[in-house]
Amino acid sequence: MKDPSNPVCRTISTLLSRIGDKWTVLVVTTLGEGSKRFNELRREIPSVSQRMLTLTLRNLERDGLVNRTVTPSIPPRVDYELTDLGRSLQAPISGLAQWALDNVDSIHLAQARFDAEHDEAVAA
Amino acid sequence: MKDPSNPVCRTISTLLSRIGDKWTVLVVTTLGEGSKRFNELRREIPSVSQRMLTLTLRNLERDGLVNRTVTPSIPPRVDYELTDLGRSLQAPISGLAQWALDNVDSIHLAQARFDAEHDEAVAA
Repeated sequence: MKDPSNPVCRTISTLLSRIGDKWTVLVVTTLGEGSKRFNELRREIPSVSQRMLTLTLRNLERDGLVNRTVTPSIPPRVDYELTDLGRSLQAPISGLAQWALDNVDSIHLAQARFDAEHDEAVAA
Repeated sequence: MKDPSNPVCRTISTLLSRIGDKWTVLVVTTLGEGSKRFNELRREIPSVSQRMLTLTLRNLERDGLVNRTVTPSIPPRVDYELTDLGRSLQAPISGLAQWALDNVDSIHLAQARFDAEHDEAVAA
């Protein structure tokens, strides 16, 4: 995994950057509840912009993690749902999210201590 | 976690973006083997630039995940090692890395299929 000449290493690095991305985590978590339409996702993740949601869903679809189904009604209806591969990503993603939840206080404390020490060093 | 007015949500989003970052994953994985000096890390992760390694280590130190120890020899010796908090991140990070390793082929296949379909749509 650490050999840069190895294409598997490069793919995994790219994958990790994308699946660790906060929008991916929020979209995969939200779709874990079941199939959703674009506007439902926007409502449930109010901090995401239309552009970032479109981009995140397109990358997830391209990676085979999300299915996009268009129903030719007027107006057309577009539903998104996790594929089996997408569902298999839920466990590792929620492991990471749970770690973040469990340790957010320790990390805040460490950051405050670090910033105080480094301000002091600058002031001295 | 999905409420954007909640500061815990924001911290967790920021944390996820950082711990899902490929350099963080590679540095935490490499330091999982034991304490390392800066140049050892560079040698073991040849694809990282000096600047990105410095930045990644500084963020990890600020978050309380890595200890930096300076030994005042000539030249000074700087060692990096995981803290207890950093070691607790190893399990969720390797869960994610293992998922990526296990599914890299399925994802390549999905990407090739997606790109072929979308090229066709453009050509038609």
